[in-house]
Amino acid sequence: MPDPSHPQRGLPVAPSRGRLTPVPAGDVVLEDGFWRARQDLNASTVLPHALDWIDRLGWTDAFRRAAAGDDARPRQGKLFTDADVYKTAEALAWEASRTPYGPAGERLAGLGTLIRSAQEPDGYLNTWFGHRHAAQKYTNLSHGFELYCYGHLIQAGVARLRGGAEDDLTAAALAAADHAVATFGADDDTRVDGHPEIEAALVELARVTGRERYLDLAGKFLARRGHDTLEHHAIGPEYYLDDRPLRDVDVLRGHAVRALYLTAGALDHAVETGDDALVEHLAGQWDRTIATRTYLHGGMGSRHLGESFGNDYELPPERAYAETCGAIAGVMAAWRFTLATGEPRFADHAERALFNMVATALHPSGQRFLYVNPLHVRHPLPEPGDDEAPFRKDTPRAPWFWVSCCPTNLARLFASFSGYVATTDAGGLQLHQLTAARIATDVAGQRVVLRVHTSYPWDGTVEIEVVEADGRDWELAVRVPAWARSARVEVGGDVRSVVPGMARARRGWRPGDRLTLRLDTTPRLTVPDPRIDAVHGTVAVERGPLVYCAEVPGGAAEARHTLPGPRPKLTEVPAGVDGLDAGAVGIATTVRTTTETTVPAWPYAPAAPEAETTEHELTLVPLYLWGLRGPSTMRVFLPVEGTEE
Amino acid sequence: MPDPSHPQRGLPVAPSRGRLTPVPAGDVVLEDGFWRARQDLNASTVLPHALDWIDRLGWTDAFRRAAAGDDARPRQGKLFTDADVYKTAEALAWEASRTPYGPAGERLAGLGTLIRSAQEPDGYLNTWFGHRHAAQKYTNLSHGFELYCYGHLIQAGVARLRGGAEDDLTAAALAAADHAVATFGADDDTRVDGHPEIEAALVELARVTGRERYLDLAGKFLARRGHDTLEHHAIGPEYYLDDRPLRDVDVLRGHAVRALYLTAGALDHAVETGDDALVEHLAGQWDRTIATRTYLHGGMGSRHLGESFGNDYELPPERAYAETCGAIAGVMAAWRFTLATGEPRFADHAERALFNMVATALHPSGQRFLYVNPLHVRHPLPEPGDDEAPFRKDTPRAPWFWVSCCPTNLARLFASFSGYVATTDAGGLQLHQLTAARIATDVAGQRVVLRVHTSYPWDGTVEIEVVEADGRDWELAVRVPAWARSARVEVGGDVRSVVPGMARARRGWRPGDRLTLRLDTTPRLTVPDPRIDAVHGTVAVERGPLVYCAEVPGGAAEARHTLPGPRPKLTEVPAGVDGLDAGAVGIATTVRTTTETTVPAWPYAPAAPEAETTEHELTLVPLYLWGLRGPSTMRVFLPVEGTEE
Repeated sequence: MPDPSHPQRGLPVAPSRGRLTPVPAGDVVLEDGFWRARQDLNASTVLPHALDWIDRLGWTDAFRRAAAGDDARPRQGKLFTDADVYKTAEALAWEASRTPYGPAGERLAGLGTLIRSAQEPDGYLNTWFGHRHAAQKYTNLSHGFELYCYGHLIQAGVARLRGGAEDDLTAAALAAADHAVATFGADDDTRVDGHPEIEAALVELARVTGRERYLDLAGKFLARRGHDTLEHHAIGPEYYLDDRPLRDVDVLRGHAVRALYLTAGALDHAVETGDDALVEHLAGQWDRTIATRTYLHGGMGSRHLGESFGNDYELPPERAYAETCGAIAGVMAAWRFTLATGEPRFADHAERALFNMVATALHPSGQRFLYVNPLHVRHPLPEPGDDEAPFRKDTPRAPWFWVSCCPTNLARLFASFSGYVATTDAGGLQLHQLTAARIATDVAGQRVVLRVHTSYPWDGTVEIEVVEADGRDWELAVRVPAWARSARVEVGGDVRSVVPGMARARRGWRPGDRLTLRLDTTPRLTVPDPRIDAVHGTVAVERGPLVYCAEVPGGAAEARHTLPGPRPKLTEVPAGVDGLDAGAVGIATTVRTTTETTVPAWPYAPAAPEAETTEHELTLVPLYLWGLRGPSTMRVFLPVEGTEE
Repeated sequence: MPDPSHPQRGLPVAPSRGRLTPVPAGDVVLEDGFWRARQDLNASTVLPHALDWIDRLGWTDAFRRAAAGDDARPRQGKLFTDADVYKTAEALAWEASRTPYGPAGERLAGLGTLIRSAQEPDGYLNTWFGHRHAAQKYTNLSHGFELYCYGHLIQAGVARLRGGAEDDLTAAALAAADHAVATFGADDDTRVDGHPEIEAALVELARVTGRERYLDLAGKFLARRGHDTLEHHAIGPEYYLDDRPLRDVDVLRGHAVRALYLTAGALDHAVETGDDALVEHLAGQWDRTIATRTYLHGGMGSRHLGESFGNDYELPPERAYAETCGAIAGVMAAWRFTLATGEPRFADHAERALFNMVATALHPSGQRFLYVNPLHVRHPLPEPGDDEAPFRKDTPRAPWFWVSCCPTNLARLFASFSGYVATTDAGGLQLHQLTAARIATDVAGQRVVLRVHTSYPWDGTVEIEVVEADGRDWELAVRVPAWARSARVEVGGDVRSVVPGMARARRGWRPGDRLTLRLDTTPRLTVPDPRIDAVHGTVAVERGPLVYCAEVPGGAAEARHTLPGPRPKLTEVPAGVDGLDAGAVGIATTVRTTTETTVPAWPYAPAAPEAETTEHELTLVPLYLWGLRGPSTMRVFLPVEGTEE
């Protein structure tokens, strides 16, 4: 049973410095609404589903056989499947903190024991290398994933330690970390791993244990990176992010998930060591990436080849890669920036990625997931079968994947979601994510209990009710999202307009007081920067934090929808969308639909082909709903007629 | 010394049936002009350069060491480098036919002896498998490339046999083919290779030797394919084209070069066996591919991931993969369709791919090549150094590549180019490619000598002069390209307008007679089909067979050029382009150039950002010239203002 009094209880990130201090996940209970439904689905379904699949595919058995020295059959799965076992363990650890009387703790205990059983006496642990392949240990740091796997093991251990528990899992994590320190810690060692991840994990382990040696090793890995010690990947020297030092690079590049995990680790280290110049440099990289290399839905990494960032403004909607893990890594990085800087733009990004990528990736059944997140689907595809773990990643939601980083990443995010909601500082409390919740924590020396009432994102009203407070002054702040074109805050009869950023109210809060944020969620048109050539001459429709799309279920070839004027009328359809989430708001608009029945022999001609068009009403739906009504075509960016440059 | 009287002399494809019979390469001598310059460059520079690189990288040494059983060091290069040695041999063989007194024959002799020396007694030949890895022979048909390599060896042997020579190379090719028949020929064998290539090679070998067994084996490989006997590639089941039978597929898909080689092989087999239904089916696949999956420059295969075709109309210009080998394979397939059907649309495609892909891929130095052929370069990149063979493929022209299929493919195409120019049938001669040439061949029972005078593509006049003919009636036909908006043919004072297709004139031709084709090469605007979303709201500029581009050398970030109206004025700049090919014609137009100096924090907004524009004249250059003036930005499709859907 975890100890609910642990000072870092349930915290996904617990910096010792920085502008803001996260409110422990244990102090935040999500209440009925958009995110609580998903957090519950994660606990009830995603976690058992993940445990089932890591068993089915032999990924847990690999530990059993490593422990037993059983070489009879070839090991199953890719060489980094250990990481998915660890991420499942991490998710269970967060879930055990959140619901200590639920089944997660017991499920985790067995997994932890299994993991620990495969560890070698010196702390080495890997079911691909090690044991019978002992001679190959650490011979392929570029693409062997050994330290990457340690990183996820350590993150799982940190999650468990932050629940106040010590068990086989935490013992394995500590032993692996100590083994890494012993093996890679020498000052003249130049080695790094091809996949960043251990950096953030080591800093977090230092935070929870107070042991400097883990922080030191993280710093060494960060300093060593960027000096071309790893082999070049065929995709290009930037793939492993080892070709140029972090401080020489001004925008994220290379493999997107690697770049984002590296950002998180570097930021953690910079915060702990007081390297404010690096914090600022990393924030500059982040801002430039948001400005030029991020999709409307918050996805990062536009290229399938190398799962990598493209050039500035290279953001094709149809073959957007925008890996689910990239969104999750982006949320993790954004949260670290929020804590370090206190600035609201990072939580703005997290909100965008959460509602339009993370929510999209999870099927309402809890048993299917997206790996890649396109913004245009021209070619309807059926979902893979219930027993399929496809090799390919560009499928509709699949039960699992041969490379299955995304489902386990979703699981650990949802289980720790409450830790990404609110912060405190010396003067008060800040609410970053607008979600129904009960928050009971210490604020400026007093115990405060708040309830956040909202049906966000469907409604733009967020009411923060003070349930408990002793009347001494403190400041309550709430993020006014960047998307809000108008917003008001009401406190005790006082109403004022606010602009995006943090809306703040300082007073002697008493039980029954309320701060109400009213955001204008009128559907809006969004015009992409003309430098994003792939969506030239189009607009998107958004409402609140949600990106909308034109989806046509039924499996037929794509009809081309065009908006007949540059300022089309958008009408909310509050009854929801047929067959879907009762709360969902659709947006009706008039589109001109072209059904080209002819296919010219050559698609480049003196003029566009004549085409018949019909004008009719189409109800756009939130992007996260796409693909739930069977094979469909979908597009976020709709061509408009009559635009001017 | 090759025998210049061989009936298939120099012929890259020699079907025994079909509508048209190719005029042997030996009967066509290119004269000074666009293609002759490149053919000479190939002989003088590309071939020695290729020989140098296959030595430098150890790809020839692999044969030496396989022959000697030398295991001392690890073999260098990817597991299909044998194929590039064979393609170099094939190119030398064609070149030895073309220039029997040149150095190609001698260079080839040494290479042929080396190749033969590594062959095992039963005909098996592979420097990766075999010998010390004998137990692994044919254990990885999906991705081992053994039969693919045989295919290229056999093609080299065919080239040599069609020069009338028999030597070590032809002995090795015949032994490998017989080994393949013995190993894979059983009726109940179901095996196929992951990379098609051997099919066309076996049919061609049957054509040149008259041995049915090679044709039979090709037919077996074709019939076996499409029944899921190969492992699925991670990219998807269509990658190896083994998931669905050829006859069930109505458009090219999967790996582009694999698909095009398979088309060539299937068409060769269908022609030889009289399977007209299959010929028609393949032509339908081809037509659909041209209509929906081909770039303006003739490139095929839009995706970097899997080097594969995308969905219909998925043709992004910036990250166009459009591999050079795909263009070459397309020319090879198109020529086979030309011969089988006699229809001119196939040579139209070949012309487009030759002028805009093949010519683009070859640097004027003859020592650098493009692998990938984009239509938009946003990010200027320097060329790799003179000693670099990069892993990555999306570089500017490089001296060689780690996977270097494209340079050797260019070499074999240029060396055999004369074989793709003209055909005969019972009634006359047809000129398919409009190139300066001397053609001396048998037409309708008489010896005919023609000279084609033209400075095409710079000038649209193509004059065919009859040098020798005995006055009996026959029909002279010339392709009027599909791009021509107006064209006239003059024969003996008679002038008539002609439309795209074959312009034909039947008469008793006598020495001194002339047929003159006059094509209108006025620069023209080309509008992409609106279904190609990635170029929505843009136009391209073409002139004759050439696609033009806006290129800005200098290495600076891209400025955005917009055409200020839907029908911009295009003016020829006949003085050529500064520093480039004297014959080149530029096209001046007025563009509005936007230099966004600000980078908004988020590139999606209620309206496009304000930007300063300057109007000025820009000279567009033929696409094949891009990148020759140093690192540059480039785009083929230019946004236009004021277009209507």
